[in-house]
Amino acid sequence: MAAASAVTMTTKARGRAARNGGSEIAKKQRESIHSPSILGTNYLSILGTNYLSILGTNYLSPLGAKVHLLSKPPGEAFTLKDVEKGLAEHKPTLLFITHGESSSGVVQPLDGFGELCHRYNCLLLVDSVASIGGAPLYMDKQGIDILYSGSQKVLNAPPGTAPISFSEAATKKIFSRKTKPPSLYVDMSWLSNYWGCDGKPRMYHHTGPITNFFTLREGLAILAEQGLENSWNMHRENTLRLHKGLEALGLKLFVKDPALRLPTVTTISVPEGYEWRDIITYLMKNHSIEITGGLGPSSGKVLRIGLMGYNSTKTNVDRVLDALRDALKHCPRSKM
Amino acid sequence: MAAASAVTMTTKARGRAARNGGSEIAKKQRESIHSPSILGTNYLSILGTNYLSILGTNYLSPLGAKVHLLSKPPGEAFTLKDVEKGLAEHKPTLLFITHGESSSGVVQPLDGFGELCHRYNCLLLVDSVASIGGAPLYMDKQGIDILYSGSQKVLNAPPGTAPISFSEAATKKIFSRKTKPPSLYVDMSWLSNYWGCDGKPRMYHHTGPITNFFTLREGLAILAEQGLENSWNMHRENTLRLHKGLEALGLKLFVKDPALRLPTVTTISVPEGYEWRDIITYLMKNHSIEITGGLGPSSGKVLRIGLMGYNSTKTNVDRVLDALRDALKHCPRSKM
Repeated sequence: MAAASAVTMTTKARGRAARNGGSEIAKKQRESIHSPSILGTNYLSILGTNYLSILGTNYLSPLGAKVHLLSKPPGEAFTLKDVEKGLAEHKPTLLFITHGESSSGVVQPLDGFGELCHRYNCLLLVDSVASIGGAPLYMDKQGIDILYSGSQKVLNAPPGTAPISFSEAATKKIFSRKTKPPSLYVDMSWLSNYWGCDGKPRMYHHTGPITNFFTLREGLAILAEQGLENSWNMHRENTLRLHKGLEALGLKLFVKDPALRLPTVTTISVPEGYEWRDIITYLMKNHSIEITGGLGPSSGKVLRIGLMGYNSTKTNVDRVLDALRDALKHCPRSKM
Repeated sequence: MAAASAVTMTTKARGRAARNGGSEIAKKQRESIHSPSILGTNYLSILGTNYLSILGTNYLSPLGAKVHLLSKPPGEAFTLKDVEKGLAEHKPTLLFITHGESSSGVVQPLDGFGELCHRYNCLLLVDSVASIGGAPLYMDKQGIDILYSGSQKVLNAPPGTAPISFSEAATKKIFSRKTKPPSLYVDMSWLSNYWGCDGKPRMYHHTGPITNFFTLREGLAILAEQGLENSWNMHRENTLRLHKGLEALGLKLFVKDPALRLPTVTTISVPEGYEWRDIITYLMKNHSIEITGGLGPSSGKVLRIGLMGYNSTKTNVDRVLDALRDALKHCPRSKM
């Protein structure tokens, strides 16, 4: 649910949705999300969406996919050992894992994951919606077969486009499939032709949101000018500043292992005696700052702060810290 | 294929695709398009797309839908009689028909279609991508159950959003369906909640392209200021001016019945001795004007000129007429 969670932090509309429907989201998530990692036998139906678990339980299964969920307590990451156990047990065609697990604020280490998957004849699909550009990620070196992200996070472009990239192995699999994909929208072989990736004359598939393409291109150009490593460092430094400030306020970071803390989205344990919704509502109302609560497994347990792309600045760090100090002072607190 | 055809006239990228892949598009269309009207038993899988015929032949069928195609020669429209025959024979759940059939340049009369469909316990789905705002259309009066369009034609907004509206009957059907739709993207009950249409607290479904929503809103505001009837008249008058000019150039309008000529997209029979591709290439190269060829049944038979929204002006009419005069003078012409 990386996208879902990050989104509520980046657009007011989603924020409103979270505030209105927070508990319903939580309920739905509890029903449908078991973990940020999924082992599946259907490798196409999940492309282009981040609703893996919901797709898995509600959408993929009717289409004939067997989806196996691996679980870890929120705030923890998967080890190679965890994953190898799943691969050996279920022999999946594809492993899906989220790099920037923003629902819990975890950055999932990926070194060795591709190699491991390939040893088990499995493709590796990575969601980098909340992490790309903000945290180190190496598609080739880490053996990622399918990598997708969103335009609206670190890349600083309006929502509407989702960059996606395929390895040779993934491409081969897509082009050699015998059956039609269940949806025209995710017919990757047609889309690859539409984008001029198959060397054949291009055919109309849909009306591309060209304005969004230009904005994404500009967002990428700005990132390229800044330099990927510089962007990674900027996100890390500003998040470290945030972490120090939060602990100075007596707040507890939800992710215990500092090495697993996502540089783009910070999760805080909901401070004792407070109602998480009171705090995010107070910040929006009195400081026009939007943070959000948890999602799925972290629902009700955390507050989440996103500092992505141009939002990742010292000024914003200090602003949200001041706002939180103010909220803790004025939000109702039960004495029990 | 209204969207497909109109699109190649409204974005250079699509135009390039048409020029590079024109013959392949034609081939694909010949394989997949039988007519602009489709009778289907699956009422959800086709929402939000204009690729009805392709969905029908390649995508809906594997999902268990029976799709029956009604045929008419390109340039003609369906009569109530044509449709009643199909309804009686196939007893479909849904009738799909395109209002602005831009591949042939026909505006499909719709009076009485809803009443007829409902008499046969069938819902009416209308594609108005190339017509909404540019030609008279009455969702309630004509008994249309599902009406969708695109932002990027007469509505003058960038591509990326597709307004869609449902009648009470369609809504009831969607909310009472027992099975999950095959794709998360077109889960209309979830989308209706996401848009706050079901009175329940809103839940995250996807990251909305908010920038596009604002542009669509502004496009609609401009249309509302102008007045719907004034916009209809503007499109009609400019297209009539174009028709007169084309006939003055000795060109033949493809749609014989003036009452069936679409006020947004004009089709001309490819002038004898000319290769259609030479003419559209000449116009783009020498006049930076993009017109396109046919699609599907009209492929190779017509040239198509789109005058939609802010493009529908006397100046543009005269500009394209001058450009065509120039093209007819300089494009190669076989003497046989």
